[in-house]
Amino acid sequence: MTDLPISSDLLAEKNKAEDAALANDYSSLGEQLDRRGIDIDVITRNVAAFTVAVPSWGVGTGGTRFARFAGPGEPRGIFEKLDDCAVINQLTRATPNVSLHNPWDQADPKALKAHADALGLGFDAMNSNTFSDAKDQKLSYKFGSLSHTDPAVRQQAIEHNIETIEIGKALGSKALTVWIGDGSNFPGQSNFTGAFERYLGAMKSVYAALPDDWRVFTEHKLYEPAFYSTVVQDWGTNYMIAQELGPKAFCLVDLGHHAPNVNIEMIVARLIQFEKLAGFHFNDSKYGDDDLDAGAINPFQLFLVFNELVDAEHRKARGFSPAYMIDQSHNVTDPIESLMTSAIEILRAYAQALLVDRAALAGYQDGNDVLMANQTLKRAFTTDVGPILAKARLAKGGAIDPVGVYRAAGYRAKVTAERPSSGGNSSGIV
Amino acid sequence: MTDLPISSDLLAEKNKAEDAALANDYSSLGEQLDRRGIDIDVITRNVAAFTVAVPSWGVGTGGTRFARFAGPGEPRGIFEKLDDCAVINQLTRATPNVSLHNPWDQADPKALKAHADALGLGFDAMNSNTFSDAKDQKLSYKFGSLSHTDPAVRQQAIEHNIETIEIGKALGSKALTVWIGDGSNFPGQSNFTGAFERYLGAMKSVYAALPDDWRVFTEHKLYEPAFYSTVVQDWGTNYMIAQELGPKAFCLVDLGHHAPNVNIEMIVARLIQFEKLAGFHFNDSKYGDDDLDAGAINPFQLFLVFNELVDAEHRKARGFSPAYMIDQSHNVTDPIESLMTSAIEILRAYAQALLVDRAALAGYQDGNDVLMANQTLKRAFTTDVGPILAKARLAKGGAIDPVGVYRAAGYRAKVTAERPSSGGNSSGIV
Amino acid sequence: MTDLPISSDLLAEKNKAEDAALANDYSSLGEQLDRRGIDIDVITRNVAAFTVAVPSWGVGTGGTRFARFAGPGEPRGIFEKLDDCAVINQLTRATPNVSLHNPWDQADPKALKAHADALGLGFDAMNSNTFSDAKDQKLSYKFGSLSHTDPAVRQQAIEHNIETIEIGKALGSKALTVWIGDGSNFPGQSNFTGAFERYLGAMKSVYAALPDDWRVFTEHKLYEPAFYSTVVQDWGTNYMIAQELGPKAFCLVDLGHHAPNVNIEMIVARLIQFEKLAGFHFNDSKYGDDDLDAGAINPFQLFLVFNELVDAEHRKARGFSPAYMIDQSHNVTDPIESLMTSAIEILRAYAQALLVDRAALAGYQDGNDVLMANQTLKRAFTTDVGPILAKARLAKGGAIDPVGVYRAAGYRAKVTAERPSSGGNSSGIV
Amino acid sequence: MTDLPISSDLLAEKNKAEDAALANDYSSLGEQLDRRGIDIDVITRNVAAFTVAVPSWGVGTGGTRFARFAGPGEPRGIFEKLDDCAVINQLTRATPNVSLHNPWDQADPKALKAHADALGLGFDAMNSNTFSDAKDQKLSYKFGSLSHTDPAVRQQAIEHNIETIEIGKALGSKALTVWIGDGSNFPGQSNFTGAFERYLGAMKSVYAALPDDWRVFTEHKLYEPAFYSTVVQDWGTNYMIAQELGPKAFCLVDLGHHAPNVNIEMIVARLIQFEKLAGFHFNDSKYGDDDLDAGAINPFQLFLVFNELVDAEHRKARGFSPAYMIDQSHNVTDPIESLMTSAIEILRAYAQALLVDRAALAGYQDGNDVLMANQTLKRAFTTDVGPILAKARLAKGGAIDPVGVYRAAGYRAKVTAERPSSGGNSSGIV
Repeated sequence: MTDLPISSDLLAEKNKAEDAALANDYSSLGEQLDRRGIDIDVITRNVAAFTVAVPSWGVGTGGTRFARFAGPGEPRGIFEKLDDCAVINQLTRATPNVSLHNPWDQADPKALKAHADALGLGFDAMNSNTFSDAKDQKLSYKFGSLSHTDPAVRQQAIEHNIETIEIGKALGSKALTVWIGDGSNFPGQSNFTGAFERYLGAMKSVYAALPDDWRVFTEHKLYEPAFYSTVVQDWGTNYMIAQELGPKAFCLVDLGHHAPNVNIEMIVARLIQFEKLAGFHFNDSKYGDDDLDAGAINPFQLFLVFNELVDAEHRKARGFSPAYMIDQSHNVTDPIESLMTSAIEILRAYAQALLVDRAALAGYQDGNDVLMANQTLKRAFTTDVGPILAKARLAKGGAIDPVGVYRAAGYRAKVTAERPSSGGNSSGIV
Repeated sequence: MTDLPISSDLLAEKNKAEDAALANDYSSLGEQLDRRGIDIDVITRNVAAFTVAVPSWGVGTGGTRFARFAGPGEPRGIFEKLDDCAVINQLTRATPNVSLHNPWDQADPKALKAHADALGLGFDAMNSNTFSDAKDQKLSYKFGSLSHTDPAVRQQAIEHNIETIEIGKALGSKALTVWIGDGSNFPGQSNFTGAFERYLGAMKSVYAALPDDWRVFTEHKLYEPAFYSTVVQDWGTNYMIAQELGPKAFCLVDLGHHAPNVNIEMIVARLIQFEKLAGFHFNDSKYGDDDLDAGAINPFQLFLVFNELVDAEHRKARGFSPAYMIDQSHNVTDPIESLMTSAIEILRAYAQALLVDRAALAGYQDGNDVLMANQTLKRAFTTDVGPILAKARLAKGGAIDPVGVYRAAGYRAKVTAERPSSGGNSSGIV
Repeated sequence: MTDLPISSDLLAEKNKAEDAALANDYSSLGEQLDRRGIDIDVITRNVAAFTVAVPSWGVGTGGTRFARFAGPGEPRGIFEKLDDCAVINQLTRATPNVSLHNPWDQADPKALKAHADALGLGFDAMNSNTFSDAKDQKLSYKFGSLSHTDPAVRQQAIEHNIETIEIGKALGSKALTVWIGDGSNFPGQSNFTGAFERYLGAMKSVYAALPDDWRVFTEHKLYEPAFYSTVVQDWGTNYMIAQELGPKAFCLVDLGHHAPNVNIEMIVARLIQFEKLAGFHFNDSKYGDDDLDAGAINPFQLFLVFNELVDAEHRKARGFSPAYMIDQSHNVTDPIESLMTSAIEILRAYAQALLVDRAALAGYQDGNDVLMANQTLKRAFTTDVGPILAKARLAKGGAIDPVGVYRAAGYRAKVTAERPSSGGNSSGIV
Repeated sequence: MTDLPISSDLLAEKNKAEDAALANDYSSLGEQLDRRGIDIDVITRNVAAFTVAVPSWGVGTGGTRFARFAGPGEPRGIFEKLDDCAVINQLTRATPNVSLHNPWDQADPKALKAHADALGLGFDAMNSNTFSDAKDQKLSYKFGSLSHTDPAVRQQAIEHNIETIEIGKALGSKALTVWIGDGSNFPGQSNFTGAFERYLGAMKSVYAALPDDWRVFTEHKLYEPAFYSTVVQDWGTNYMIAQELGPKAFCLVDLGHHAPNVNIEMIVARLIQFEKLAGFHFNDSKYGDDDLDAGAINPFQLFLVFNELVDAEHRKARGFSPAYMIDQSHNVTDPIESLMTSAIEILRAYAQALLVDRAALAGYQDGNDVLMANQTLKRAFTTDVGPILAKARLAKGGAIDPVGVYRAAGYRAKVTAERPSSGGNSSGIV
């Protein structure tokens, strides 16, 4: 642990400055929760045990088809990405695992593992990429990958996924996430049925290569990059896929991949009930797949999703074992700061959901006391769980104020000096 | 057939006046289609063979929660409703079957059947109603029906559905359509998982009462009357239901019951592929479940749906046997006129879909000639198939210009005199 | 004040039981806010000074076009409606004014005023109704009212609005709210330009009848009851109207009347900036104009709206004087309970917005410190302001726990006995 | 005209092969229209007179933030872009003007003008770009341009716009189109009011630099690249801008820049009525700003837009003089083919709108004959105007079958040989 990027002295000093106030707030909250029949320390322990993975690509600056405005000190490769991820985990103690992307993160597995070990990091699900063409790739995915009309393209995509599994095996990963961009931009471009048959056929080949202790997560998305139809467009199709593939196949829910107005927490409930929930790609959005920071736009929705998760945990739902990851595009913030605050927002929703009085809720639901059922949720949501989150971080060696410590440490300035700019901003595709 | 409501002399006279122009247009179109390798008479025969059911409640004037503005001469019971339905079928020759609603259409089955026979009408799927409380109903559906927390309410709803099947058996119907309003208006009001378990349990009892040669159609809807969550909210849940219930259970698609932007034709393709498409409730919409006339807002979407249906027919998709019904709310038009033109719009979409050069389309799709694939659909859609539709009506004894004949016949004025107003407009629920 | 519906002894007793816990929570929160540079008592005083009107029709049970499920003890007329409104205000001390509806609330103005006075209530904006036909109305609004093609119908609608002003004058109201349902269900039904010209012409006649110290609030809505186009469809058209009419005309924002995904807080900012914000109809929604309880679905959005309002207050925006009203449809809850909790949620958002450190926020905005700007808002939102709200109620003679006191008082049972049912549930319009 | 890219012999030969069939179809349609009281040749002349500009960037292959899949033979600069534009105009005779983009199309104005003249092309509105950073740009637009908090950035953006006007003056352009990406990704990031004030201030400086015979078109967009708020988010704000700036300022409508479900044709009507319609950026979309080919997804909506335009023309609406441009992203098709077919689809909608019997429509509207009003529009829309479009092209020297001639000419293969690939596909920004 001696390799952690932020000075432990600085961290200790900053924590000390905030400690008394935190103790005060924690104790007041504890009293109040006690009156509500809740033991604050149990909640804090649960929160401390919760972790969420960060994606390697999340520490770079994102953009849109119109432009990308690079930030200073962007990591130039997977080793520097891991360094940045280590900052996030050191200060939040909530993100010990990193999810890699093939081929963007290709490197010697041993070196990768050693670097991660030194930073206290592990590896989460592996992500394949057949939505863009890699340099020197033989066949193009312009017209599809796993569902392409040409069997040679499908075979190439299958092999890429199997290669991704192989890399993951070397790193200790236990899951493959498959998101494809396949679809169509024009009515008539694609035969929906044929494309889905080809996709299922190709995915069966990928599934066959899955080690026994691995799972495969398929991810649906309504649109973008395809703008008329998408092969894996919604959770209904995703559920069909998981059923067709078999018991190691599960449906991943990205919070931004749904039609407007859709009740996402209900989809989560359905997938849990039918034992097919893979887990989440967390982010927030107002319009489409905006990939904004978790809880930035609709924190109550995030809470309602966690209400389903805690309810499933509470009733010991069969086969319930979701994988959590953040998947965001940080266009105007420091990605490290966005990922730290996003992890905290996710924990906030979890902590709030833990506060729901489930016995009372069940009673109100059973008796159709609609108003009190709703108020039971709202009481948990309006509780300021900040002191619990800070205490949980502190208990694990993190920061009471992660952004404050990060800024005080001057990490961004340091890496900006160390990492010469890769050459600037894209001019966009219009 | 002597009981048909519109004078056959008038019909003949009106048709005669338009016959020459139709013959001309039909012949020109035939020539053009011949150049495109299509035999117009084959298309016309196919169109003539297509029928779509009308719902008994569709001949009354609809409304919103804000107001209902009654129209003149509204039918006062199921017998008068059948009279109005007979007009629609007499002039369009496309709607020989009527779908009944329990309890609104309760009557002596023998008398009903005799009246329908005399009008040349048959009966389509039966519709149960547990989304509103019938007069003198023992238990209320305010907080749900088939998914209610109280087993007694669920049992009442089950029995109502079984009663609906019994009525249908007496009338020669072969299907039960189940749409429920169950859901919640507040986060927390309902436990999603519990509600769905209860629904599935109740529907299994209904399914068990289904005769061997019957099918059950479950209908999903995103929202309204419930405004936070709906138990059967989308096609994914609907598909789960059909799987859980068994081989006689199918998923009904109402074109207005989806989230904004959803690609409905793709859902249709998925349900066909997995042999679970029940059929359709046709209508059109711009905002929500607007229940406007079919093809009034987005006729190209209606065409794309039919493109899937004709494609399935063409490739002889296994288990493909959809049931077609119009389900609209006619708030500002004469319901008979709206149903006649809606039936014609549905046939228009079907006729256009029949014109698609499927061999060429498959070739373009296979070779990723995106533009030509799209143009192949567009060429079919932009063809003016009006002469084909008119010819098909004429061939079956209908009207070249149904609305023109209907107006000339003075039917509305006649029934207005015969049917004293039931007492006026609702003042609405705000 | 001796006529208040809930026993003051019961109220005092219930408050006493909760007083110690509240004092504790208030004091802890005060300490924490003090550390953040905020004087809790200033916030509490501001909250205590804020009020929001309730609509007379809100105390009845709402419904949908599919059904209405009546609740027990529904008020049978405007006097009983005022009784129910008095309960809401007595316990929350936040809703001293009632907004009346013409013609539903027609009664002798003197008697009305006396009854309201005795209950400690006043009157807010008057609401006209040309979206439904009143009993014995001469001409129908089926095809429009203020924009109807027939000048006689427009004249009738103008006169109804003028009559509504007259009633309001007698009651001490100072504003007229005009929401119309005019629009079309079919492309072609209406000439957009002609309809808007006619609407503007008619509204100019209404405007001319406005007393000098009155304001007129026009309310836009995207759709429903019209389902293809609505004459006053969005804030852009509403702004044109306010400009055309003159300085006493303002744009009312109902939170549920927008297209999906629209940024409502930004519309609020624009209307404030151009001095045309009339005020609000508060409610919440997930899909359309769901009319759910304020803050029930997206409390963060409600906070963001209040963030704009407090910002305008803070910078003393010219002409800023919004009118606040709740406008909801209570289909499955006791309307009194829903209105009390909604008023509290609105105050919650206001209190949270008052906590925003505006100097810090302005600094972060100016320096494009995006993350900290966002965190500044989030810190205010995640603060549990419950103790402030309770203290403000208590200080004004209200209840610490309004729903608890209401239930303990047995008000609903009492009025159920006094108010025999009006005869039951509507069977709905499908 | 001798420099036109496609061989005139080939063109003549291909046209000859299709001429007889076209003559036949045109004559049959003429007869039918004659029966409907329409002179086909008048329609054809009107169609022949209609033109729509193409954007220089439209002839390149587009992409998404996930990937761009380059096509063969992409133009490497503005001169080659003009060559491609000349093909489109030569074969469709509908796109004589090209809209340039600053700085992407910077070149010696004299050389540009000479090249365009030789190709028979002119220049349409000039487009500035402050939504991305140009190479070697002094200050970044990462946090805004015309609304940036830093006056130096605003000044730079103002100067860029003025420079764009200067370039346009040299080329004979008469309009400046300003679309900015300014907005925010997080609640709190931006003060809505302050940002809009700054924007208005900056635009006033741009407006002041506008020559007397120029117009400025501001373009609104709901979201993307900003994902929480956009400074010019909708037509309401756009209308405020046009009012604030003055009589040379107009509102541009891009069909893809609206919230879901919004009635765009109604916005068009409002802007015409208040004399502020600048014109259009044509494209189509199913989900967001998909930038698909015009008419590809919802051709009836395109027709309804043209119905408003023709109606305005018909009634000689004051100040009505819209500018038409195609603005699409061609990700999977040959851009030249997409632009040719898009131009044709736009003309199709125009031709259909010309067929509307406006006297009959006005009568039905006036009498609230809803069904016949709607049928009057539908009759025009379902007419196959293909022969009119082809005849208009032929009359002006274009191709009966533009895509067919283009493919036969081997243009894409030729330029692919002449234009070595610029190096391949972007790997995308996630």
